[in-house]
Amino acid sequence: MAILITGVAGFVGCNLAVEFIRSGNTVFGVDNLCRGRQENLVSLETHVRFGFAKVDMSDLASYRSALSALQTREQITEIWHLAANSDIPAGIDDPYIDLRDTFMTTFNTLVLMKEFGIDVISFASSSAIYGDLGDRLLTEDIGPLLPISNYGAMKLASEAAISAAAECFLKRAYIFRFPNVIGAPATHGVVLDFVRKLKGTPVKLIVLGDGTQQKSYLHVEELIEAMFFIHERVQERVAIYNIGAGDEGVTVRFIAEETVRVASPGATIEYGNGNKGWVGDVPRFNYSIDKLRALGFKPRMGSAEAIKKAINQIVAQELSQ
Amino acid sequence: MAILITGVAGFVGCNLAVEFIRSGNTVFGVDNLCRGRQENLVSLETHVRFGFAKVDMSDLASYRSALSALQTREQITEIWHLAANSDIPAGIDDPYIDLRDTFMTTFNTLVLMKEFGIDVISFASSSAIYGDLGDRLLTEDIGPLLPISNYGAMKLASEAAISAAAECFLKRAYIFRFPNVIGAPATHGVVLDFVRKLKGTPVKLIVLGDGTQQKSYLHVEELIEAMFFIHERVQERVAIYNIGAGDEGVTVRFIAEETVRVASPGATIEYGNGNKGWVGDVPRFNYSIDKLRALGFKPRMGSAEAIKKAINQIVAQELSQ
Repeated sequence: MAILITGVAGFVGCNLAVEFIRSGNTVFGVDNLCRGRQENLVSLETHVRFGFAKVDMSDLASYRSALSALQTREQITEIWHLAANSDIPAGIDDPYIDLRDTFMTTFNTLVLMKEFGIDVISFASSSAIYGDLGDRLLTEDIGPLLPISNYGAMKLASEAAISAAAECFLKRAYIFRFPNVIGAPATHGVVLDFVRKLKGTPVKLIVLGDGTQQKSYLHVEELIEAMFFIHERVQERVAIYNIGAGDEGVTVRFIAEETVRVASPGATIEYGNGNKGWVGDVPRFNYSIDKLRALGFKPRMGSAEAIKKAINQIVAQELSQ
Repeated sequence: MAILITGVAGFVGCNLAVEFIRSGNTVFGVDNLCRGRQENLVSLETHVRFGFAKVDMSDLASYRSALSALQTREQITEIWHLAANSDIPAGIDDPYIDLRDTFMTTFNTLVLMKEFGIDVISFASSSAIYGDLGDRLLTEDIGPLLPISNYGAMKLASEAAISAAAECFLKRAYIFRFPNVIGAPATHGVVLDFVRKLKGTPVKLIVLGDGTQQKSYLHVEELIEAMFFIHERVQERVAIYNIGAGDEGVTVRFIAEETVRVASPGATIEYGNGNKGWVGDVPRFNYSIDKLRALGFKPRMGSAEAIKKAINQIVAQELSQ
């Protein structure tokens, strides 16, 4: 009995694979290795209970071949579908990126689950499906859902396709709406961006926007704990949960200052104008995890602690390269 | 200045085209003529202010060519996007139908709107995006949205893509969540189904389900009135409105009995079991039009009146064939 992780070479995927291996499972992973990185799999690839295939999941025939080959080793009983475009701004300019990498990967995953008789899916959705709802508290029962990026739109489209598939042939679907997740190995995101900028120009950090953007961040370790927690307890056919740190979050200014402190003490920070970093970036939101809390999960780390831990990890990661 | 209607040969599309022509507009229409019918365009095609192209909108290159050709006659300023798969059960068996005809038609429409600089869209969404939320009142601000058919899923995916496009380049997006709409010329739906069954076997009508399914129906005339009403008054960047008769609806039993009364008096009616007609069919729901009412719109016809009018129209339509 094996678990398939799509996007296994990505930041969350490789951490998740390590956890599953650690707890005795067989893990198969697929990734197109566009944004995910082969080196994230180094510690996994030699493991006897790990199998990997490089494949473009938006191409059904290739994806089917890869799954067939993995299935001959061990029956896949469950899919953790994390593969997606992770570069939101790129998807604003070119809607085909999220159509292909965020949505068609989901669509094809469902097609193959039906073909192969795999009936449990856990899906990495996103708080981006909510769009910009102003000051309203973002609970799972809120609407209308008006994503402002193609990434958010194609995550919502994926949720919808999974929901329809659950009516038809899935036994269980877990839809986890991720917050901003941080940690290592980082492939994108504000902390990595700042660390790399400082590596290039150690005396000055230029920040998009005025630094007042405030977001809640969750460390990847805790994200995985929360997903496992929900997965073990919830029996609904389609279970939707916001996952997050459950706090007000921290500002870009806080992240910039903390990154400078660790990576390049004394560097000056220059801010831009406005509180949106790019088109499709939600300036601030109240992301509720009341449903997750009601299930009994208590986040250990707040956003500030998660950011600090991630900065240390990412600085170490970039220094080693 | 012309209005483009996608799915113009469909039931709502041809009625909408007639209204726009009547009020002095130039109307261009596109349709793949799979479910829409050429004969629905007969009264329009000879009109000097009407242009038509048969095209598969899921094929971007063909769609682009068709629009380019129409644009040489007159600049398109606005698109009413109605094209979709209208056969919900077919889309349950084969998810590619709604992927292609319900979602990719929307995706490509947005791609071409950006290319051609057309920045106002009116979209025929559906109450199917809500899925089966039990007894909860279906207002526009409810969630989670868990469609139970691929049709509903790909309508929700379309809403999401439109929402992201509105952040990026659209000036105005009207998202109309259609209820069950009836009237003529009918190409599908429960009334047409019953009328055709009775044409084949005049002594007996076999009904899927136990007849207790209850739905609200809106006549197409009133649907168009409501859309024009919203379009004239609402200035939000993305405006989402449920449109419906605003009543409790009528049962399948009522429709069966009324159809028998008009089409084949004295025929016996045989019911099946359960209150779902097919996978993906929502048994009963409370569809709120409070937002539409708050805007000042008052439905004239209730579901019962709309059904009766439609039965007469559809019986006449089928007799003439």
